Amino acid sequence: MMKLPLLLNQACSQPLYEQLAERIEQLIQEGTLNAGDRLPSVRKLHQQLQVSISSILEAYRLLEDRGLIRARPQSGYYVKVNASYFLAEPTPSTPSLNVCSVDTSLAFQINNAVRHPDVIKLGAAVPSPELFPRKTLNRMMGQVIRTHPEMVHAYDMSPGCELLRQQVAKRLIEAGCSISPEEVVTTNGATEAVYLSLKAVTQPGDTVAIESPTYSGLLEILDALHLRALELPTHPREGLCLNHLETALKEKKIAACAVVSNFSNPLGTCMSDEKKQQLVDLMNVYDTPLIEDDIYGELYHHGNRPKALKAFDQGGNVLYCASVSKTLSPGLRVGWAIPGQSIKKVKALKMTMNLTCAIAPQLTVATFLANGGYDHHLRRLRSAYRVQMEQMQAVITHSFPPETCISRPQGGHVLWLELSPNFDAMALYEKALQNKISISPGIIFSPSRSYRNCLRLNCGLPWSSTVEEALKTLGNLTHQLLATSVEK
Amino acid sequence: MMKLPLLLNQACSQPLYEQLAERIEQLIQEGTLNAGDRLPSVRKLHQQLQVSISSILEAYRLLEDRGLIRARPQSGYYVKVNASYFLAEPTPSTPSLNVCSVDTSLAFQINNAVRHPDVIKLGAAVPSPELFPRKTLNRMMGQVIRTHPEMVHAYDMSPGCELLRQQVAKRLIEAGCSISPEEVVTTNGATEAVYLSLKAVTQPGDTVAIESPTYSGLLEILDALHLRALELPTHPREGLCLNHLETALKEKKIAACAVVSNFSNPLGTCMSDEKKQQLVDLMNVYDTPLIEDDIYGELYHHGNRPKALKAFDQGGNVLYCASVSKTLSPGLRVGWAIPGQSIKKVKALKMTMNLTCAIAPQLTVATFLANGGYDHHLRRLRSAYRVQMEQMQAVITHSFPPETCISRPQGGHVLWLELSPNFDAMALYEKALQNKISISPGIIFSPSRSYRNCLRLNCGLPWSSTVEEALKTLGNLTHQLLATSVEK
Repeated sequence: MMKLPLLLNQACSQPLYEQLAERIEQLIQEGTLNAGDRLPSVRKLHQQLQVSISSILEAYRLLEDRGLIRARPQSGYYVKVNASYFLAEPTPSTPSLNVCSVDTSLAFQINNAVRHPDVIKLGAAVPSPELFPRKTLNRMMGQVIRTHPEMVHAYDMSPGCELLRQQVAKRLIEAGCSISPEEVVTTNGATEAVYLSLKAVTQPGDTVAIESPTYSGLLEILDALHLRALELPTHPREGLCLNHLETALKEKKIAACAVVSNFSNPLGTCMSDEKKQQLVDLMNVYDTPLIEDDIYGELYHHGNRPKALKAFDQGGNVLYCASVSKTLSPGLRVGWAIPGQSIKKVKALKMTMNLTCAIAPQLTVATFLANGGYDHHLRRLRSAYRVQMEQMQAVITHSFPPETCISRPQGGHVLWLELSPNFDAMALYEKALQNKISISPGIIFSPSRSYRNCLRLNCGLPWSSTVEEALKTLGNLTHQLLATSVEK
Repeated sequence: MMKLPLLLNQACSQPLYEQLAERIEQLIQEGTLNAGDRLPSVRKLHQQLQVSISSILEAYRLLEDRGLIRARPQSGYYVKVNASYFLAEPTPSTPSLNVCSVDTSLAFQINNAVRHPDVIKLGAAVPSPELFPRKTLNRMMGQVIRTHPEMVHAYDMSPGCELLRQQVAKRLIEAGCSISPEEVVTTNGATEAVYLSLKAVTQPGDTVAIESPTYSGLLEILDALHLRALELPTHPREGLCLNHLETALKEKKIAACAVVSNFSNPLGTCMSDEKKQQLVDLMNVYDTPLIEDDIYGELYHHGNRPKALKAFDQGGNVLYCASVSKTLSPGLRVGWAIPGQSIKKVKALKMTMNLTCAIAPQLTVATFLANGGYDHHLRRLRSAYRVQMEQMQAVITHSFPPETCISRPQGGHVLWLELSPNFDAMALYEKALQNKISISPGIIFSPSRSYRNCLRLNCGLPWSSTVEEALKTLGNLTHQLLATSVEK
């Protein structure tokens, strides 16, 4: 590893080991060092700093005690945390447990504003197009037109392009799912998959149980389908509270439950396998459909692909939804649903709504999944999202008030920030827009307009001084707004 | 013009002018001569047949009296009718005027069956892909990828691709509409445009006034949106009865009226300009939205493009829907809505449902409309559909029972047949499928399952002995079924 900038002051009264520990802590807090990084060996540091071996060992022991680094036998010392460690995690949510109607007119307005081409898009959960293999995709689209010059113009019908459905089924093996291509219905993105799935299992006026906070696009769908929402308490790392879900299933007429199973939007939650099994079992017991949006499932930052809820689904009660909009190309509008028992209904609704999807984009994605180096691309993409998120966490740790709570997603590309209860993220949203920066205020993630003191930030943009400056500006604005609210 | 096969028998007791008139009538009935065809001049026929000029003039006068040909001063004699002239027109419909709920499960099943790859598709209203400029479209898609290598993958949002919206606005000038690109929302085909338009102006449980018979896809949309239908009496040439519509608007709560304005499916109706103006005015008086599906508007067989209802819409009360699925390529899934006052709602619903359409297909169609020779292509396509329809009408006239009534569309590519009241088109549908021929039985075009003795035939397939034989088989099956029903 490169040399760390560790200037110590021999003349200072503070012991050298304390200075060294503080300096390393600072490097973590600044985001220079991140979880998983290896620290210089004791011998190397001894040579570099001209500090005694015992002092260095003492400094490392201090950092271990503080929970910042860990020793691995035969290997050395490793950083255990990221910058965000110095901020607390958001508190588990405690929504009111009243069924409420959904009005997304404000969210719609905000979602339009945050995507304006002139702003730095920290509001919308959009990836940066530079991260996508556009050249390869374009080459493959050309190839598709040459190979299937007639098929791309045919009158196709739902369930859509077979080559794509085969590839989707194949990819899902990694998520623990055993799916046949016949079970897949292709859709215009995951959004349409969720829309069709929810429409297939509900009637207007029905109630759907959701995470709180939840993805604002899901709320828009509930609104469009005349559905009501029951917000359930949700833990920032563990997800939906199953006890509350069970109570709701027992007491109220819940038509369905809809969750983002892996690296949820906006909290970044990824349920454990054990909890996934429990959730699927619970929904089975109450014979209530479970809609799974797994759009971020392949964007894990560490380890292996987390399983889908669908992997635990024996009876076909899970309606699985995903797309390539966060991993390959949003503009191709290629997604899919695997609706289990509800496949007949979903296929019919898709036919009724728009027959099927454009064929060339489906074939292009099928070709890329088959031999475009998707796994290689995903490795690079995951690493980019992980690093961008760490960089953002580090700047937030420095620029935002120390009482800011921040989520610790293990995948995806969004961060959730919770500020002190008197903070108004709508005011920050407006101030930020004046500075040509977009954020998503917390209220759009809740039908009851909770989370007024929260906001979501997008880490999809490649790191740049513009993004860094934008974050610092957000930090300053937050300080100012909090100062004003205290004065009042 | 080519020489006509007019063999006369000089030895026969029947006068030569009568023989000649009968032979020409037969040529019309067989579809060899069609409306608009010029007959040989009297002098040419005199030379060819060695028959006196006065006999030929006498034969032409007889045909004129029978309404089969007309004389044009300084020009000659022209055929006035097609083969179908020898069959009656369907009777104007007289539905029950009860609001009814819509169940399209049977229609869905049938619509799936009629599109099966192994059958001769006289059931689905599909064009034949050979008629489409697939090579040019593919070349243009390649060009689009090279010219816009990044745009085709971007996170776009409703209202969709601007280049396409510009071309759509431009094309609509010919339909009498003055539209700006800002008024257009691109959709996945006309089906999605109608779905979004109806959803934007109704609530579940509302009643929509429709033509009877009406397009089965519209009924599927009503079903999916939990809407009820009021079938209105409809004339096979003049369209919807406005008196009944006005009564319904006065007496019942009608949320919207939905019509196929030009060359309707299945009747082939094209309303006159005067009636279009009256319909738009009427809907305005009752402040009720009018949804116009103009998917066949550019497929007129004679004269000029008929105006859209939208052309008479001053206040933005008409929601216009169309696509290129019947003229260029169904597989590209490119359509549009021009929702007038409801544009904000339609845009929001489109965003909620699937954000926007795939970008590459939209750009491909925009490029083709701008410089792919669309008008040239349409001229060929119209002529092909006209000739195919004439050929089918001729075979039907010969093969089906003489009491069969047949529609006389002036555009589009579907024919509507009405048989005697005891005929069961569902039985014909099943018998036909056993012979690997698909038809659409009449009941799928009515929520009250009327039109049991009617069927719709597709003229979109290029003429071939296969199509001809299929029609003859249908004629035979119809004769057989009628004979059986009489025996019972």
